Amino acid sequence: MPQLQQRPLTVAVVGATGVVGQTMITVLAERGLPINELRPLASRRVPGREVTYGGRAWPVLEARPEAFEDVDIALFSAGSAVSAQLAPEAVARGSLVIDNSAQFRMTPGVPLVVVEVNPDDALDHEGIIANPNCSTMQLTLPLMALRDAVGLERVVVDTYQAVGGTGADAIAEFQAQIEAHVAGRPKEASVYPHPIAFNVVPEIDTFLDDGYSKEEWKVIHESRKILHLPRLRLSCTAVRVPVFVSHSEAVHVETQRPISADEARQLFATVPGLLVIDEPSAHRYPLATEAAGRDEVFIGRIRRDASMPGGHGLAFWVVSDNLRKGAATNAVQIAQLVLERGWLAPASRRPGRVA
Amino acid sequence: MPQLQQRPLTVAVVGATGVVGQTMITVLAERGLPINELRPLASRRVPGREVTYGGRAWPVLEARPEAFEDVDIALFSAGSAVSAQLAPEAVARGSLVIDNSAQFRMTPGVPLVVVEVNPDDALDHEGIIANPNCSTMQLTLPLMALRDAVGLERVVVDTYQAVGGTGADAIAEFQAQIEAHVAGRPKEASVYPHPIAFNVVPEIDTFLDDGYSKEEWKVIHESRKILHLPRLRLSCTAVRVPVFVSHSEAVHVETQRPISADEARQLFATVPGLLVIDEPSAHRYPLATEAAGRDEVFIGRIRRDASMPGGHGLAFWVVSDNLRKGAATNAVQIAQLVLERGWLAPASRRPGRVA
Repeated sequence: MPQLQQRPLTVAVVGATGVVGQTMITVLAERGLPINELRPLASRRVPGREVTYGGRAWPVLEARPEAFEDVDIALFSAGSAVSAQLAPEAVARGSLVIDNSAQFRMTPGVPLVVVEVNPDDALDHEGIIANPNCSTMQLTLPLMALRDAVGLERVVVDTYQAVGGTGADAIAEFQAQIEAHVAGRPKEASVYPHPIAFNVVPEIDTFLDDGYSKEEWKVIHESRKILHLPRLRLSCTAVRVPVFVSHSEAVHVETQRPISADEARQLFATVPGLLVIDEPSAHRYPLATEAAGRDEVFIGRIRRDASMPGGHGLAFWVVSDNLRKGAATNAVQIAQLVLERGWLAPASRRPGRVA
Repeated sequence: MPQLQQRPLTVAVVGATGVVGQTMITVLAERGLPINELRPLASRRVPGREVTYGGRAWPVLEARPEAFEDVDIALFSAGSAVSAQLAPEAVARGSLVIDNSAQFRMTPGVPLVVVEVNPDDALDHEGIIANPNCSTMQLTLPLMALRDAVGLERVVVDTYQAVGGTGADAIAEFQAQIEAHVAGRPKEASVYPHPIAFNVVPEIDTFLDDGYSKEEWKVIHESRKILHLPRLRLSCTAVRVPVFVSHSEAVHVETQRPISADEARQLFATVPGLLVIDEPSAHRYPLATEAAGRDEVFIGRIRRDASMPGGHGLAFWVVSDNLRKGAATNAVQIAQLVLERGWLAPASRRPGRVA
């Protein structure tokens, strides 16, 4: 029986005033973690700025190394630069870092965990557990099920990603463009290179020389790591769409062995965290607006892929709230997992650990 | 030398008050066809309703069989039921029908023509030439080039389709939802099963028992017919996005022989009607809002497909104004082609035709 964390926790949220940070605090409250002290941290202290949690107001403090003293778990969502600088400081002070940035996701030895997919990977952490990219997260649940049932040969995924994934500035810019449209004024863009209102923009994160964006490579590399399939053949086009919350994905999977749509539907229904909505003739399939505010990953439009006549292919549609399961919910689920299993301390310093 | 059509034409536009019909009349004017009489037709005559063309006002008449007397070319865009009923009446009266509905597209013996891809198919018409579906149209230009250069093995295309493709009712509903959002009122939907504003909806046309929508099958079947590849392996997820005009498509092609991104870029640059915009690091790629009002098909984000390590794969992004090249422009181009080549009469009744 692993040692359970019993004492009430001190939990820091780095980026507490951002869209994901705020959602993290909401999800921490919903899930009732045994938190004694919440320590909301931001790039700078704004006097008087507070976060309400557990019926109390907690002042937002400046995110600097000393702020992690006595912190048990530090949830980071303030970008890669902040994680690069402060996550090691938090670890040095004995905190477990659950990092939503891309900074450590592909670092060997840092677990990259989707709790329904590869929870056991969290066992071996040395102070940092990485939270996957939002568009990767929702994809891995059905891919895991297909990997185990029929094997994965090749995956093509094209994304329809919400503006909310970029942050509060992007949401405000989007809203201003909508209002400009109604008022008959020109739409202005500065957060994105082009107006996103009433447009679709195939640019998320920066581009590499090979013509792929970093976002597209994240989906490829992170899926391989999470699924323990380092050579998985996967391609992605990542596209921003004028939606506030929830990422949608059109997925086409070549499988090693054949699977029918009915078999796939039954298979997906057994995956915790994955909810099948699949009555297209009744206009029922996952929708961005309906997934918003929910913690599940939704899947529908499940059908044999018409380009794979032998039945070795499946097409489907996956939708999830990118701020919740795609970011905050999974980070909090990792915290819960680690607490339940007694994995809070780094593996090498854990009592009773057989090396 | 084929016989050229010299006398000024009488051209009917069926569905002249619809979004595509209006665009057809605009494109007819832009391209300066030798039209003596324009005959705008609609489901019923609205007294006083007129269409301006060539500096004259033409009354909108009721679309009934007698309205096709003396019509040389009848452009149909009033839905499949109207085409089924009236296209044979027009043909019986000696008109060439260019039909934008799905009614005859897959009928054996009816040419289905994209003028840059398979113009010669128009030679064999017997009174009806079909205009492809908008989402098919733009896809066939790059696929034709790849078919000829390196061969096509398999194609996956996921679409981002504009509301304008559905018609004026859908545009008005979309606009009302945007205004409701700004005013803080609930969004109402009746043209679509769900609000399209700030949402993405994976339903276009009705669903078949196999889980595919008719729109998705149109892309598959029509591409096969246009490209003369009856067994082409192609899959599609067709998705409506909150965009007014222009369809975007993420395309992943397995090729029979390898091709690099640079080779593909050079290849696509040689295709008439296809315009390469591909400097992603400078934020330059095809965009729905920039394609609107243009007659070209735009292609960018051209790269080797990461899931095909041998170089037998290509990924790219294709955008086109669904009302213009996707509908009206190609229909008018077919009319021009037929006039230039002397193919106005049915093939079997054409003077000098060697059977």
